[in-house]
Amino acid sequence: MTIMGFAQRLPVHFYTDLQDVVRAATEQAGFAALLTDDPEDVAYLTGFFHHPCERPVAVLLPVDGPAVLLLPELEAEHAQVQNAAAELIAYPEFPGIREPFAFLTDRAHGRVGFPPSMSVGRLELVRAALPGAELSPTDLVMRMRYRKRPEEVALHQEAARITDLMLVEGRKLVEDAIAAGGELPSEAELAAHVSSVGTGTMYADHDDVVVVSFLAGGLVYAARNSARPHGLPSAYRLRPGDTFVLSLGCAVGGRFVEGERTFVLGEPTAEQERYYTAVQQAQQTGTEALRPGLTCAEANKICLDVIRSAGLGQYLRHRQGHGIGLGMHEPPWLEDGDPTVLEPGMVVSNEPGIYVPDHGGYRISDSMLITEEGARPFTAYPRGLADVIVPV
Amino acid sequence: MTIMGFAQRLPVHFYTDLQDVVRAATEQAGFAALLTDDPEDVAYLTGFFHHPCERPVAVLLPVDGPAVLLLPELEAEHAQVQNAAAELIAYPEFPGIREPFAFLTDRAHGRVGFPPSMSVGRLELVRAALPGAELSPTDLVMRMRYRKRPEEVALHQEAARITDLMLVEGRKLVEDAIAAGGELPSEAELAAHVSSVGTGTMYADHDDVVVVSFLAGGLVYAARNSARPHGLPSAYRLRPGDTFVLSLGCAVGGRFVEGERTFVLGEPTAEQERYYTAVQQAQQTGTEALRPGLTCAEANKICLDVIRSAGLGQYLRHRQGHGIGLGMHEPPWLEDGDPTVLEPGMVVSNEPGIYVPDHGGYRISDSMLITEEGARPFTAYPRGLADVIVPV
Repeated sequence: MTIMGFAQRLPVHFYTDLQDVVRAATEQAGFAALLTDDPEDVAYLTGFFHHPCERPVAVLLPVDGPAVLLLPELEAEHAQVQNAAAELIAYPEFPGIREPFAFLTDRAHGRVGFPPSMSVGRLELVRAALPGAELSPTDLVMRMRYRKRPEEVALHQEAARITDLMLVEGRKLVEDAIAAGGELPSEAELAAHVSSVGTGTMYADHDDVVVVSFLAGGLVYAARNSARPHGLPSAYRLRPGDTFVLSLGCAVGGRFVEGERTFVLGEPTAEQERYYTAVQQAQQTGTEALRPGLTCAEANKICLDVIRSAGLGQYLRHRQGHGIGLGMHEPPWLEDGDPTVLEPGMVVSNEPGIYVPDHGGYRISDSMLITEEGARPFTAYPRGLADVIVPV
Repeated sequence: MTIMGFAQRLPVHFYTDLQDVVRAATEQAGFAALLTDDPEDVAYLTGFFHHPCERPVAVLLPVDGPAVLLLPELEAEHAQVQNAAAELIAYPEFPGIREPFAFLTDRAHGRVGFPPSMSVGRLELVRAALPGAELSPTDLVMRMRYRKRPEEVALHQEAARITDLMLVEGRKLVEDAIAAGGELPSEAELAAHVSSVGTGTMYADHDDVVVVSFLAGGLVYAARNSARPHGLPSAYRLRPGDTFVLSLGCAVGGRFVEGERTFVLGEPTAEQERYYTAVQQAQQTGTEALRPGLTCAEANKICLDVIRSAGLGQYLRHRQGHGIGLGMHEPPWLEDGDPTVLEPGMVVSNEPGIYVPDHGGYRISDSMLITEEGARPFTAYPRGLADVIVPV
């Protein structure tokens, strides 16, 4: 399936509608305005995507006035081209003779909420620049981001189509090398290939690629290297008998999806089969647990208990998964410590894994939409053991 | 020149020596310990490089005890493989039933300094977890990072060799396309090519690639697109008569270098020549201004005044440059608002530019070491107009 001319960029009315919804929640929470310098919040509220650096970029959203986007002059034309849904206020440069937030002095009054992700140093500058504001932390915007709107779900779905394609093409690179009888690709070569497939597909099929820091790519590791879940692609070249993990993902319109599969090069050994099967069962049971009304902590326990019951608990290194959206990782967390109740519209990664030192790692991940009927995976690459065996 | 077996990873004694120097400065500043969760500080103090995410990774450095690296279990083996120079304390997962910083409760006492980059939410958790500590912000580690140590300078120098090579190979891709008579590469194709050259060279020539989020690559934009300094590579295909900017860089052992040149496809017009020449003169004058004793603000003014005197001040969009090291951008800032005095051992980017709407952008950047004798560029690609003309 090819989708030509898919529009990654959401229309301005998406943002103006959303701003009204956020204003209502802001007022109800007792704030006169929100001020956020979180780059994902900025993209969420205005459609302006940028590479964050030391120069502040922030949105001020008063309950009774237009949204304001504070940004360096360097980014002003960039924001115009992106149709940022806000009045732009550009400061000359950072650090500046006049402190950037001083350009908002006349705009911020009363109780102003800011996200806890703001740095201590930044908050100090903001306090000094906004004497009329009573600044108070709130996770209001982050909580509103939990439940994705239909336009966002469509972006996730298209990101999943591309992620599935990257898995197919990554596997194909290995299969083609086997068929050609030469040496197999290295982890780094595989990583570069799938990244190029993902990015190339976007530029070919989409009208207006919203560029974020990570567009398409992922972790690729094989054999023992894969026993470290956050290991990074190396020059190690795949060999028959290895398992290898393609831990891929991409962002469409800034909305992320992950799709990860563990492949086996040749007939699996009894040990490989045991590990793979336990992880697959944990993911399947984890999918069933991702239903509205359960807490994140409950889903996580139900999922990981499958691995513990299989006697493999010592190989767990991480939780079931995490929220995913404008953040590659964002709350809520599918973990013991998170009491958040699952709700329809949330998008989470479901990615149990085990990591056997000096042997390898096994992980299956799909990004999933929580619906009234349960969890629906966005990514479709098959998950059975037979599906991930690459004959050598 | 090829360098085989170059070691990107600094030896453990680099870190233990450095920790002693930092301890002395910490004690002198009246602190009993430092606690930093800045990923660059963590790499600086222990040699542990990681992809930062929501899971805290932090170094506690007491003046009278061993350095401690707090990290999630997920990263523990990764830190061991990297020979992280610290005692490891691993917490199970995030957010966790027991809050991660609670694993440091018995370790932190007295006045503990933390960086202003710590988030407000994180600081709240740290305060709750460390009742015996009196937490106080300090930029001590960041200030120590200003003056690079000789081992770091060698990493910058090797990053510059690779950046120069990326410039050469990027230009060559265009020249080869011209020679072949086919269509010219697109911005995105050029960007992918130079990134692959940079990464490939590291894997070929280096023993142990220290993987950071951005290994090698950069911004590539042509013609009108280059009028937006933070624009991102698009599907636009180069055409005769265009200017194009290769704004490249890489990190060796985590130490960044930038090298940027503006090329002209064919004989420059009078307008192109005027813009290019002004920027080149500004950069040359800016180099002369980067000497110990001058402030960052003074150097910036001397540099940008060249462009203002040429009657092109309305096309300025940014300062002269910024510090560069473990951060791609880090203080000090070569800007009006920064009174920091330049000192030998500092590394900064010297990158004046102008951006003419609907026409294009012009920028020349080299990363430079401040020495007693003045600024010494790490990157060597020539800067004259004749050097950047690509005949068509």
